[in-house]
Amino acid sequence: MPASPAATPTPRPLNVAIVGATGAVGAELIACMQRRGFPLGVLRLLASPRSAGRLLDGPHGPLAVEALGENSFEGMDVAFFAAGASISRQFAPLAAAQGCIVVDNSSAFRMEDDTPLVVPEVNGALLDGRPRLIANPNCVAAIATVALAPIHARNPVVRLIGATYQAASGAGAAAMAELEASTAAHLAGEPFEPKVLPHPYAFNLFSHNTAIDPETGYNGEETKVMAEVRKILGAPDLRVSFTCVRVPVPRAHSMALTIECERPVTPAEVEAWLADAPGVRLVNDAAANRFPMPIEASGRDEVLAGRIRSDLSDPDGRTISLFLAGDQLLKGAALNAVQIAEALVN
Amino acid sequence: MPASPAATPTPRPLNVAIVGATGAVGAELIACMQRRGFPLGVLRLLASPRSAGRLLDGPHGPLAVEALGENSFEGMDVAFFAAGASISRQFAPLAAAQGCIVVDNSSAFRMEDDTPLVVPEVNGALLDGRPRLIANPNCVAAIATVALAPIHARNPVVRLIGATYQAASGAGAAAMAELEASTAAHLAGEPFEPKVLPHPYAFNLFSHNTAIDPETGYNGEETKVMAEVRKILGAPDLRVSFTCVRVPVPRAHSMALTIECERPVTPAEVEAWLADAPGVRLVNDAAANRFPMPIEASGRDEVLAGRIRSDLSDPDGRTISLFLAGDQLLKGAALNAVQIAEALVN
Repeated sequence: MPASPAATPTPRPLNVAIVGATGAVGAELIACMQRRGFPLGVLRLLASPRSAGRLLDGPHGPLAVEALGENSFEGMDVAFFAAGASISRQFAPLAAAQGCIVVDNSSAFRMEDDTPLVVPEVNGALLDGRPRLIANPNCVAAIATVALAPIHARNPVVRLIGATYQAASGAGAAAMAELEASTAAHLAGEPFEPKVLPHPYAFNLFSHNTAIDPETGYNGEETKVMAEVRKILGAPDLRVSFTCVRVPVPRAHSMALTIECERPVTPAEVEAWLADAPGVRLVNDAAANRFPMPIEASGRDEVLAGRIRSDLSDPDGRTISLFLAGDQLLKGAALNAVQIAEALVN
Repeated sequence: MPASPAATPTPRPLNVAIVGATGAVGAELIACMQRRGFPLGVLRLLASPRSAGRLLDGPHGPLAVEALGENSFEGMDVAFFAAGASISRQFAPLAAAQGCIVVDNSSAFRMEDDTPLVVPEVNGALLDGRPRLIANPNCVAAIATVALAPIHARNPVVRLIGATYQAASGAGAAAMAELEASTAAHLAGEPFEPKVLPHPYAFNLFSHNTAIDPETGYNGEETKVMAEVRKILGAPDLRVSFTCVRVPVPRAHSMALTIECERPVTPAEVEAWLADAPGVRLVNDAAANRFPMPIEASGRDEVLAGRIRSDLSDPDGRTISLFLAGDQLLKGAALNAVQIAEALVN
């Protein structure tokens, strides 16, 4: 796009409601909007009645949390939902009916045919139709598709096998605190009873704790990731398998991906495609043994991508191995939601 | 095997040398022999000259470490090497020439055609020829093949894709200490400079820090694992790819395996094969969401196996997904070495 000499019109301030404002994603939504200069008017922080009155850091100082109710969305332009699927099912249609653009971080509507599931760098064109209710993807699906889309666009991905290294933040702020507290107890030689997660988390890892589908043997997280990757990439026939594992890392998800393309593909091609891809940062320095790490992905908008190599188990040269790390609370949640809202209000 | 009424002959006590006695594997070798009732005569603890004189816990009280030298193996029956490849290259042939059975935990001889690379449950028959120098496999290869062999024996594995979650112990006792110390510093908000590992380890993970092969893009650990899995399974044509990742866990390795067989295979078949397999313990309780975890594999002889399911990315039903956790210092090192020695001296 050529640079335009015309002045950008000052956008009208927008009134924003955040449902689930006291959670880990809620806090990041506020921080993301401030950092990105979102044209914020009134900010309404909503949560369960037991959090009402609690003060959170707002853009202009402390702001009291209000109890979520049927009238919470009056006068609001945008509503971010980050409070779980049942709250979204109950209140998101209400917010949309009251005129809000609704960006829902829960799984409630993601697989509905008439709900766009959007990663702006991948399928942001779906926002051109000005939908009122947009689903924000599962964190693994969002992080994976940012890096898969530039490959899929040039050489369709036909099969994808993923193993994840997922952070505490995906289970919420309480899980992040439990990781710290249980690790401190372990180091002090003190007992610790897990309250948030079903297994000891200190210096341990475990299969993602969503229920196992007795038909397939896949857990709920894996099932979501597989379906959402297909929907976001617009690849309903993609053959995909994920193993989702929780590791003792606070807030960035990593994953090892095995990506089979329709035609032969080289690491050099993939590196060039990813170097140009929006939302991706290459960290692929073989000589220095420097690759994506969650500690470096944390707090960053970009998904880090590296370990790009031709998969030696595929003699046809159609398969690429890739390692990613992305901030679960940013590209995996709040940042993607704010990007969706920005695209819709601009 | 029917119970035999004949008395077992009391085995002659065997004199054992441990090279690298001050390391993490060295300590486990001593503990393993004691726990398993290895018929131990003289125990000679060997290490670099700077450790000479240090006292370690022996079976009959404190025992002084001796400096490794050319005459260290006189009068010894068995020599365990756990001090790195260059020490093994220099001293293992010497020990064998002096009449020792040598079990070498380093990578020095593993891929030599005339050196058996042994996991007793998998290819213990190679010990029937009474070799003098036996290579103990890489920890990932040993843990993986214990669970792969029972499948491969019934329905040959033709392709294997693995992503690992590797513990600190694989980098030695100093790395285990660095995991603890750096995590304590992180929790206290204090700076920490990594000395053993190349990256911050507290609440972080990183691609295995062995050098990257510029030809293939695979690191040294992955290259070893892939070659050794082929050799141990006796499957030189197995197509295999691994991504090896270090996670902040002290001493048990986990891995997600995608196992493609020659013919269709069901999860029920694999579960039955693994339930009967020596060295494997099923932890596959979908209803309770209870699967292999490093915290439960630590200190155990068996490799834990679970998450057994038909891989949804393979429409032909020939691919199984599996998750394993095994103690890196036991089946991944010391236990396997002691099992090899037991088989040879019985």
